[in-house]
Amino acid sequence: MNGAISDVAALAGVSKATASRALTGRGYVSAETRERVVQAAATIGYVASPIASSLSTGRTLAIGVVTSFLNRWYFGEVLEGAESALRARGYDLTLYHLPPDASERARILDSYLANKRFDAMISIGIEASQDEMTRLTTNGRPLVAIGGNIRGGHSINIDDQALGREATEHLITLGHTRIAHVTGHDAELQTDTVHGRRLAGYLAAMGDAGLTSAVHVLPAVHSLPGGYEAAAQLLRDARIRPTAVFASTDEVAIGVIIAARRLGIAVPAELSVIGIDGHSYAEMFALTTFDQQPRGQGAQAVEILLEELEDRPRARGTASDPAVGAAVEVHWPTRLVIRQSTTRPESVD
Amino acid sequence: MNGAISDVAALAGVSKATASRALTGRGYVSAETRERVVQAAATIGYVASPIASSLSTGRTLAIGVVTSFLNRWYFGEVLEGAESALRARGYDLTLYHLPPDASERARILDSYLANKRFDAMISIGIEASQDEMTRLTTNGRPLVAIGGNIRGGHSINIDDQALGREATEHLITLGHTRIAHVTGHDAELQTDTVHGRRLAGYLAAMGDAGLTSAVHVLPAVHSLPGGYEAAAQLLRDARIRPTAVFASTDEVAIGVIIAARRLGIAVPAELSVIGIDGHSYAEMFALTTFDQQPRGQGAQAVEILLEELEDRPRARGTASDPAVGAAVEVHWPTRLVIRQSTTRPESVD
Repeated sequence: MNGAISDVAALAGVSKATASRALTGRGYVSAETRERVVQAAATIGYVASPIASSLSTGRTLAIGVVTSFLNRWYFGEVLEGAESALRARGYDLTLYHLPPDASERARILDSYLANKRFDAMISIGIEASQDEMTRLTTNGRPLVAIGGNIRGGHSINIDDQALGREATEHLITLGHTRIAHVTGHDAELQTDTVHGRRLAGYLAAMGDAGLTSAVHVLPAVHSLPGGYEAAAQLLRDARIRPTAVFASTDEVAIGVIIAARRLGIAVPAELSVIGIDGHSYAEMFALTTFDQQPRGQGAQAVEILLEELEDRPRARGTASDPAVGAAVEVHWPTRLVIRQSTTRPESVD
Repeated sequence: MNGAISDVAALAGVSKATASRALTGRGYVSAETRERVVQAAATIGYVASPIASSLSTGRTLAIGVVTSFLNRWYFGEVLEGAESALRARGYDLTLYHLPPDASERARILDSYLANKRFDAMISIGIEASQDEMTRLTTNGRPLVAIGGNIRGGHSINIDDQALGREATEHLITLGHTRIAHVTGHDAELQTDTVHGRRLAGYLAAMGDAGLTSAVHVLPAVHSLPGGYEAAAQLLRDARIRPTAVFASTDEVAIGVIIAARRLGIAVPAELSVIGIDGHSYAEMFALTTFDQQPRGQGAQAVEILLEELEDRPRARGTASDPAVGAAVEVHWPTRLVIRQSTTRPESVD
């Protein structure tokens, strides 16, 4: 490993400062210039030492991402959006999976937050306890919480309660009254969680339409097989079968559609189904849903963090000395995409 | 941030060396002991400096994981297995997504391999060009390639060609002769790729059974909607319709099953379907498949790498000075799980 940064700069035809920026990822460099510098470094055999560089700046040039699931659509999409935005800016993504078990979570958060291997954090869909929330928001590093219930740092959220209401009202407007809601499992239904807020929206819409006595809520694991199993239970008795289902996520909604078809129940003629997500399978199942573009949310989180890191690179707050600057709260927009899975009921009650 | 490592050790009731191992993740410490040390460190307010520690050891305590997809089942499962094994050993996981575009890939690999932010690498399902393979295997850091076509470092592979043959022979043994194969798209069918090897197994089995003239291969995007679209094309003409399909992955197989049901074709009575993977949806669709336990593959890769890092912590090979020790080649076992998606054809030709 030979060569100096000045040789790299000369070969690439840029200043030393630009060459350094291109190789360390600190500060803006166009993709084209970065490529030229990286090629020059490769030719010369120059290798920057991010470790030594980190010691002098106190920066690791890594962002920690903590997520509840590695293998569910929404979480994977957010991760992909964040990874691609970080890569473009020369930052690394350090990945942590936070499992459901509380004591395991505490142990992970302890060792995660005690190490200094990242400059800032992104959480994806974490429903945190009060204690977990405090640890995440008062450890002195910027945090963007995407989805979930974490307040106190920056956040990006769709309006879950409003969406729960809109989804239900879409079905009510079509003429449905027997509208069931397939929601998260019990632990996910405390008021301030994604599934709890969507449920509250459903209940409010049903109440406003005078349909409180028709409320029918079924818990499910929020996955495709989870929706399938819930629907098998929900749809088996034709006499009390709903004419429409609002599913808390698209994966659950698709499970409901598959179960309905297996049972010989026509969608949408005999059963309308609406979800929330904009899942990559939604088109294949002609699913009416609210498209929430999770990749964009991941990229947006990166923008918020890097702006903060570049604005105040050394001024990190602590519990006793909170970070300067108000938290950014992004109300992320969604778009209702009406497909063939929802229609008027065959006969209005 | 106060306290010394000796205070932490005293409070946790362990030696300084053990406390250090627990906090840095180097060397074995039981989960219980690690928790006690981490608690003690938290109580005292002791924070290890991995950056300073890295400078003295030349280690980053991070493993780079490079994957082709963040949102497909097999890749997500391998990632989850690797993440959980790394976490248990105190290592970080730095994530890189390698998109299909060749020039973008070259740029990412350049900057990825030029930085020193990881001690070793895991690749998941990467089908690399000769140039990419050389870069990945001769940069002086240990590599475990899981799936894909990378040779030259350590590797973990299921026997794709043998599985392609076995899947096809399972259908032949049941009495099928009109057996179609839904494979990857064209770019994935060069001989030495996962999909190319599975295809070769299908062709060999068909040839051995004297069914070469019945060979029917259909390319598809290897996803659930990809399988759905391929099947819509494959199944539309009843006169030339196959009685069985071997799909290259479970996601494709499930797409085929959903398409068949939509077209009113009974599975398995009119169409048998077999896949490869052991996908989490396989049970819901009663899919016959080869279970390949990808989480275990991710964990196994971590074991191979950490053993190597701990055995020869400073002796990293380079292109001109290759790493000592033979490459580990794991032939990962699979298990045929027979469910209701495969049966004898209604009438043997």
